[in-house]
Amino acid sequence: MITGSEIVIPTRGFSDIHDLTPEIEAAVIESGVKEGLVNVFAVGSTASITTIEFEPALAADMTEALEKLWPKAMSTRHGTTWGDDNGFSHLRASFLGPNITVPVHRGKLVLGTWQQVVVINHDNHARNRTIEITITGA
Amino acid sequence: MITGSEIVIPTRGFSDIHDLTPEIEAAVIESGVKEGLVNVFAVGSTASITTIEFEPALAADMTEALEKLWPKAMSTRHGTTWGDDNGFSHLRASFLGPNITVPVHRGKLVLGTWQQVVVINHDNHARNRTIEITITGA
Amino acid sequence: MITGSEIVIPTRGFSDIHDLTPEIEAAVIESGVKEGLVNVFAVGSTASITTIEFEPALAADMTEALEKLWPKAMSTRHGTTWGDDNGFSHLRASFLGPNITVPVHRGKLVLGTWQQVVVINHDNHARNRTIEITITGA
Repeated sequence: MITGSEIVIPTRGFSDIHDLTPEIEAAVIESGVKEGLVNVFAVGSTASITTIEFEPALAADMTEALEKLWPKAMSTRHGTTWGDDNGFSHLRASFLGPNITVPVHRGKLVLGTWQQVVVINHDNHARNRTIEITITGA
Repeated sequence: MITGSEIVIPTRGFSDIHDLTPEIEAAVIESGVKEGLVNVFAVGSTASITTIEFEPALAADMTEALEKLWPKAMSTRHGTTWGDDNGFSHLRASFLGPNITVPVHRGKLVLGTWQQVVVINHDNHARNRTIEITITGA
Repeated sequence: MITGSEIVIPTRGFSDIHDLTPEIEAAVIESGVKEGLVNVFAVGSTASITTIEFEPALAADMTEALEKLWPKAMSTRHGTTWGDDNGFSHLRASFLGPNITVPVHRGKLVLGTWQQVVVINHDNHARNRTIEITITGA
């Protein structure tokens, strides 16, 4: 069985990190899948999906680490060419990647106790981010 | 249903970025899958798959960001031990990762308007890169 | 068909890299799947899965590259808030990501000759790391 759904999450910009785990768990329960996989995919080229221990101090560390590598004030050819100011957003998104795939066992996500699935909105403004949740299994 | 195919893409070296979206879309159409997932995997340890807004200015920014983090002239134990000059290529590839998995809905890839699937050849010379496209669904 | 198994791998800390390819190949053979996909997922928020040419010189280069970006001595809000010393471990894990998905063709992993699937334990001490191997296909 394979079944997909879409969620839309309001986020702030500049690598704001949002916990998606409750929404994904709800989609797994609704699907009825007990053994399988969930693919979580961020639509768009300025957002990422990863896992992290989702607590405020570490989320701020992660956002700061992204800012250190690709600062929001960095000059980019993309910015110069298109008049956008979000070259840094694209770089952050491409480095972290748009998706992860998490196992499902006995109807539950197989995650560590301190491991949550998150979306990160790297764009330079608040956005509703669209996330595709695709569940395969039985 | 699960079906795989392989494409071979000529690329230049040093983190040359190549858009794979047309080839992946063609594989999805040929498979007949309407709802499912496509896994895109780069064979070899000096290439990566990710998504990016594929336009020349941003592609150059991405290649430059990789060069800044792991310069082609960097000294590595790998280079010293094996006489290769591509330690930087391996590091870039392992950081970005070899695969992504994209949803398929109504027979189409679910991507943002400005989001393309790309292979990046980090090796220090032009190469034909082999990409595995695996489609699951119905 | 979809089938999952779990392996537990002893690892040292500070981005120790361990080759999982033999264990994954064994799981594929045991599953009987000839054409499909294997998802490899690291449980917990201080470990990553990626591919690399697994030889000691390059493994040391990779660990050093991680140490350069997010040093074990770095100060983090996570460390200050919780008294942990592993903020760097979490950052490394979230950047590299918890999973990859590898194609299976004719009962074998489709990897390059010099491409192995590895787990990296970023935590600040030796740990048994739990890895989920989920195989789909026929």
